Amino acid sequence: MGNNVKRLAILGSTGSIGRQTLDVARAFPDRLEVVALAAGNNAALLAEQASEFNPKFVSLTNGDFPSGVARLSIDEIAAHPDVDLVVVATAGKAGLSPTLAAIRAGKNVALANKEVLVMAGQIVMAKATKHGVEIYPVDSEHSAIWQCLVGEDRKSIRQIILTASGGPFRSLSPEELSKVIASDALKHPTWQMGRKVTIDSATLMNKGMEVIEAHWLFDVPVDRIKVLIHPESVIHSMVEYDDGSVKAQLGYPDMRLPIQYALSYPKRWYNEALPCIDFDQLKSFNFDRPDMANFPCLRLSIEAIEKGGTYPAVLSAADEVAVGLFLDGKIGLMDIPRLVEKALGAHRSMDNPTLEQILAADGWAREYIVSVV
Amino acid sequence: MGNNVKRLAILGSTGSIGRQTLDVARAFPDRLEVVALAAGNNAALLAEQASEFNPKFVSLTNGDFPSGVARLSIDEIAAHPDVDLVVVATAGKAGLSPTLAAIRAGKNVALANKEVLVMAGQIVMAKATKHGVEIYPVDSEHSAIWQCLVGEDRKSIRQIILTASGGPFRSLSPEELSKVIASDALKHPTWQMGRKVTIDSATLMNKGMEVIEAHWLFDVPVDRIKVLIHPESVIHSMVEYDDGSVKAQLGYPDMRLPIQYALSYPKRWYNEALPCIDFDQLKSFNFDRPDMANFPCLRLSIEAIEKGGTYPAVLSAADEVAVGLFLDGKIGLMDIPRLVEKALGAHRSMDNPTLEQILAADGWAREYIVSVV
Repeated sequence: MGNNVKRLAILGSTGSIGRQTLDVARAFPDRLEVVALAAGNNAALLAEQASEFNPKFVSLTNGDFPSGVARLSIDEIAAHPDVDLVVVATAGKAGLSPTLAAIRAGKNVALANKEVLVMAGQIVMAKATKHGVEIYPVDSEHSAIWQCLVGEDRKSIRQIILTASGGPFRSLSPEELSKVIASDALKHPTWQMGRKVTIDSATLMNKGMEVIEAHWLFDVPVDRIKVLIHPESVIHSMVEYDDGSVKAQLGYPDMRLPIQYALSYPKRWYNEALPCIDFDQLKSFNFDRPDMANFPCLRLSIEAIEKGGTYPAVLSAADEVAVGLFLDGKIGLMDIPRLVEKALGAHRSMDNPTLEQILAADGWAREYIVSVV
Repeated sequence: MGNNVKRLAILGSTGSIGRQTLDVARAFPDRLEVVALAAGNNAALLAEQASEFNPKFVSLTNGDFPSGVARLSIDEIAAHPDVDLVVVATAGKAGLSPTLAAIRAGKNVALANKEVLVMAGQIVMAKATKHGVEIYPVDSEHSAIWQCLVGEDRKSIRQIILTASGGPFRSLSPEELSKVIASDALKHPTWQMGRKVTIDSATLMNKGMEVIEAHWLFDVPVDRIKVLIHPESVIHSMVEYDDGSVKAQLGYPDMRLPIQYALSYPKRWYNEALPCIDFDQLKSFNFDRPDMANFPCLRLSIEAIEKGGTYPAVLSAADEVAVGLFLDGKIGLMDIPRLVEKALGAHRSMDNPTLEQILAADGWAREYIVSVV
């Protein structure tokens, strides 16, 4: 294979982002080589992916793997010398350790896992700087911001405008919100996503975490990151510069575009499978301010990152457990922010926490939520 | 003055764009030095500007200039060794000769004059390449495209989406359009501009000329330049890339932003006088397809550039005379496209015309329009 082939490790390959990353890899066999795949539980799908892409290594956290491919731990895969770019598409805190392993090994990371930066943004970004590696965002919003910043001086950023669809319950009253059940919340109006992130979209916790991510990725203070509701989800985010000029990135909601951009950067690749905006059909874009009263998760996220320390890790862990309880039908949708707020209130944070302290806070929050439900 | 001061020649300093260029220069006395001013007829305003900015040279095409400042021809000013950047804000064909003089002298040009590229885009861009100079667009649409292209590979452009307010008569019937008088047409819904360009906005000739300009400035075939009606005039244009990603530049309609960007490029300067988008007040953006039947100037422009040769020069000259006749109340608004189409039909074009042949075609078209009215 030539020098221009990028050798990928895909962590979380059986999840929604992982599978779409493989869709992109399938479209560019001359440019992308899948060297390693890592999954959590789905042995059957991992075996299928391995038989199609012939990776050198696989990792399966839980369960037996039937094939003869060499098995490594997820951290070993992330740091392996045969890997050029590590796609972190795991869910929850599982992405933190391999992300740090990849950075320490001097590898650029395409990061789709929100919790990594929410929990440990300061540590991750400091290590990335120290090891001279880049964190490429895979989220559509952060990819939009990244694309708007290409060729621009980051010191000229006046503010970031993070757009949000507003989720499926944007127009509900507090009473209606309290009656939402999991099957309602799993129907997102514009995006096809995993279950956890779909519920986080419905509560705007997803957007709150994106504010925290944008803060770390682009080194912009939280008070210069503005959330704007845009129900059509075509403008994926915007950057306003010092001269008042605003740049926006647009596309139909399809995660394969931000995934592909993270793999093709700084180039752009023609991919006939990616949808184009049909400008002849374009009618209108709408905008609104987020409803901070009905969607307290956005406020809680901003408070958590402003207070800093281990608060964002508690926010993330408490949310992960609460979303699980909601998906199991054990609590209501509005119990999610209530429980997260309770955990943040009960937590004793530490300044400049170590990774161990962050993981301890994460563990504390998980136990706390279970104990109070 | 330090090395970072850009020394400007402003051609057409008493017109709308010229005056706004001086507004920007006034805001950045440490970064911009006004070395030369050139005007056509307005001796009084030129004298006022000269007394404020103390240029080394002035040019006045018609009339006496009272002050003691050294007088040069407009071409001498454009080529003067003391000038770093030439702002061509003249109207009509008057900008062509000094633009070429500036390019031959190796100077970058900030180009606000549409006719220069419409008449002689091939010659101007070839000479710019030969002399290693850049043409910076000052039009809001072309500035938007330029800003979207910063840091991107121009070979990745799939299409350019040129937005248009649609002008004040977007919703009129053909019969209503035929009754429009100059005072109606001079009220543009979103932009404050000179008289000629305001009428051209009402007929969409302005947008047609912008298609031609975009073709030359960004080396994109005309069939990959799409016009999209966007009545709010906040998205100033967009670029779609090979991967389906679209970048847009936004701002409130104010020419000082694209003017300043052409002067500050590649930097961006904070200017408290420039308006910022108030995202809290943002409600909706609307889009529509241009009405090619009611607004034939757009079609005529595209036909003229597709046929090439001296057709675009005839389009531009015929339009300039017809707009003058309309402003004088001698013809109706819909006579403008009728006369331009007649001139294009009667013209015998030449392939790869020289500058002299372009100017001859321009002269022919002017006489032709007068002869048929």
